[in-house]
Amino acid sequence: MKKLEDYVRSIPDFPEPGIIFRDVTSILQDADGLQLAIDSIQEKLKDVDVDVIAGTESRGFIFGVPVAYNLHKPFVPIRKKGKLPCETISQDYDLEYGSATIEMHKDSVKPGQKVVLIDDLVATGGTIEAAAKMVERLGGEVVKIVFLMELAGLKGRERLKEYNVESVICYEGK
Amino acid sequence: MKKLEDYVRSIPDFPEPGIIFRDVTSILQDADGLQLAIDSIQEKLKDVDVDVIAGTESRGFIFGVPVAYNLHKPFVPIRKKGKLPCETISQDYDLEYGSATIEMHKDSVKPGQKVVLIDDLVATGGTIEAAAKMVERLGGEVVKIVFLMELAGLKGRERLKEYNVESVICYEGK
Repeated sequence: MKKLEDYVRSIPDFPEPGIIFRDVTSILQDADGLQLAIDSIQEKLKDVDVDVIAGTESRGFIFGVPVAYNLHKPFVPIRKKGKLPCETISQDYDLEYGSATIEMHKDSVKPGQKVVLIDDLVATGGTIEAAAKMVERLGGEVVKIVFLMELAGLKGRERLKEYNVESVICYEGK
Repeated sequence: MKKLEDYVRSIPDFPEPGIIFRDVTSILQDADGLQLAIDSIQEKLKDVDVDVIAGTESRGFIFGVPVAYNLHKPFVPIRKKGKLPCETISQDYDLEYGSATIEMHKDSVKPGQKVVLIDDLVATGGTIEAAAKMVERLGGEVVKIVFLMELAGLKGRERLKEYNVESVICYEGK
């Protein structure tokens, strides 16, 4: 039986020399790969008491919504600045060059709710850390963060050490 | 029983006077709403012979991937320019002011494959028309386009008249 790793197309020296780009679209473009990816993320949540699934634009939507559907939970989209129509809170985070801002609706997480964050990939962990902080500012509790893929060399897990983090596939290196 | 319409938050005069903004996040933020939305889209596909589900970034991902998962089909993400790592084809389309470009991987649809496009909302239909053209350039056949919501006053259906289009909720006006 194929493993999830077998569905990941790896592109050497992209976007720059020394980086191996892990392409998540090659998983999605295979019906078995897509099913295995969603099921593997869900497996990480089988003993987790969760009220809300949240994910960041746009690849967090890809894996977060099917899991929310399967577990019959709400899905909270965390979006880039200016995309959400109602009252939001926002959080800045650093990029390699410059910074970015993500937002979520103020009414999307209620105090005391248990929130799981899902994303396709953790590199430095900056985006998800910002997402987790926003959830906490709304009074929610980040009970778990699940990534489909982890690039261990970029030390996102260290940055997220106060959270319960699991990844389905862990690659050494960057 | 609540209907899907009951989960849609409508925001009058946003982003400008005379426009009623239909907020899809309010559907997602309710577990029953999310389930009903996905199931309603899927219902429109029950007699459709389909090989591939495709959706445009980023709200097309929200509704397309769960349907692909449930039907055990591949999902092809159609993204904004510069986001996909492998060889792509691209298609420009007009916006109210200026234009935009979307892309898909060249290997994501094979000649003869039957493709369903899924999106949250059809307004003028420009983005989905561009997506459909790209699928056809790759030799795919667009067998159906399903929207969760349709703003009939913007005449997207007229623009898409050569396709089999269905929407779950149809609002008069813009």
